[in-house]
Amino acid sequence: MLPRIVTTWPIRKYADGAAIQREDDIASEYPLTLEVDGEEFATIVCSPTDLEELAIGFLASEGIILEAADVKELRIDEARGYAYASLHRPQSTGKDDYAKRFIGSCCGKSRQFYFRSDARTARTSMTRMTLTPGQCMALMRLLQLESADFRLTGGVHNAALCTATELLAARTDIGRHNALDKLFGYALRARMPVADKIIAFSGRISSEVVLKAAKIGVGFLLSKSAPTDLALKLADDLGITCAGFIRGQEMNVYTHGHRIVDESSPDA
Amino acid sequence: MLPRIVTTWPIRKYADGAAIQREDDIASEYPLTLEVDGEEFATIVCSPTDLEELAIGFLASEGIILEAADVKELRIDEARGYAYASLHRPQSTGKDDYAKRFIGSCCGKSRQFYFRSDARTARTSMTRMTLTPGQCMALMRLLQLESADFRLTGGVHNAALCTATELLAARTDIGRHNALDKLFGYALRARMPVADKIIAFSGRISSEVVLKAAKIGVGFLLSKSAPTDLALKLADDLGITCAGFIRGQEMNVYTHGHRIVDESSPDA
Repeated sequence: MLPRIVTTWPIRKYADGAAIQREDDIASEYPLTLEVDGEEFATIVCSPTDLEELAIGFLASEGIILEAADVKELRIDEARGYAYASLHRPQSTGKDDYAKRFIGSCCGKSRQFYFRSDARTARTSMTRMTLTPGQCMALMRLLQLESADFRLTGGVHNAALCTATELLAARTDIGRHNALDKLFGYALRARMPVADKIIAFSGRISSEVVLKAAKIGVGFLLSKSAPTDLALKLADDLGITCAGFIRGQEMNVYTHGHRIVDESSPDA
Repeated sequence: MLPRIVTTWPIRKYADGAAIQREDDIASEYPLTLEVDGEEFATIVCSPTDLEELAIGFLASEGIILEAADVKELRIDEARGYAYASLHRPQSTGKDDYAKRFIGSCCGKSRQFYFRSDARTARTSMTRMTLTPGQCMALMRLLQLESADFRLTGGVHNAALCTATELLAARTDIGRHNALDKLFGYALRARMPVADKIIAFSGRISSEVVLKAAKIGVGFLLSKSAPTDLALKLADDLGITCAGFIRGQEMNVYTHGHRIVDESSPDA
């Protein structure tokens, strides 16, 4: 049986000069080792939920599969923490090639990928969809409501796949990338069209987070946290509208701001 | 020349229904590829500071070197983002062995390592040092003062190597592990004894963070953030006193609490 996403631990809590003993909620951390066609591929440290989605999303992120149907069989051994995948078209998962640093440029632009697998799988968004600032702020509020239970532990990230007005699926993980891989696996298994979807995310926007969004295939990445400069360069190149620090009535729009259209604007 | 740790980006800022254009501070993200004896070893996504310390700390964390003197030569190509290291005793850095999942048990305890390199390099702290709650809270305040500049971007983590009353060195990075590897590299290059030192850290305490602290060799890990359950199991096994949520006059002590001794206690 899987450990729970939150467990308890005895702590001594100091507050205002006094100390008390009590049980505290702590986020669980669970190592999942992924074997592909009998070969060890990676160990993912994660929250113990949605492990099949995680395995499929991770394989797709790494460019090993293109769709969920490329996986012939997937078996999770919860007690040992192993996921065994077999593919319809077995392929080399040797680290030699896919994990090597790869710096390419494309169409004279500044796009940089670290790894070959990124260059193979990240897609440029061509969506013509727009959102209002109020819709962005409302989606972030919905994400925070959805994840209220888990915020107690202070140790997890939340990601949701959304339409302009609704969360379609929300996933939680101690690892920022895992929360996104779980969503990716969800979308692949559901064969959901994603070009017109949005990702709302609790964590910092690094280059790897933007690449995940591009691999999933969305055109919008909304976060309550900060971005890095490389993340913004990639979002700019990959056609992703990136907004951060979405808190209450505040929001910073960093890239492809033409897709954020004011309510009162005539072209809204 | 290295990019700066913080750069600027043009944003559209929404606040209270109005939108303004302005330049915002953004944390830089810089890929550093480490070659060891001519072979590509890893690409580390980091803040572009203290790259020699980062390279040395990372090699030591991975169990490739034991001390700074094991590195014969280290050259950084800042423009390309490469670090070239050569070792006095060349050894295999093949991923086949060191990155494989490894679950061992030791002395009948529950200790689990993910990777062989962790089992080889993590040390159990035997320190008899104690701290008062007030000292822990004061060190966290010093870390926050030290890092006030960087908190502006909202995107970086800070780590410091401390005595009971002072910060000896503080390092900053967008990656939690990198900030600790930079400190590790600093301590190795300075040949600093660490058994009586403390790490104060801004980020979440995951199992990997506890393992880094054990590799560096300290007996105390203080953080303003939350721990995970696996981190606490490891800290318990590795003899590390772990305290989190240190904010103002508050603090939670999770493991080896006998080393946190109240000011008014007779054995303080």
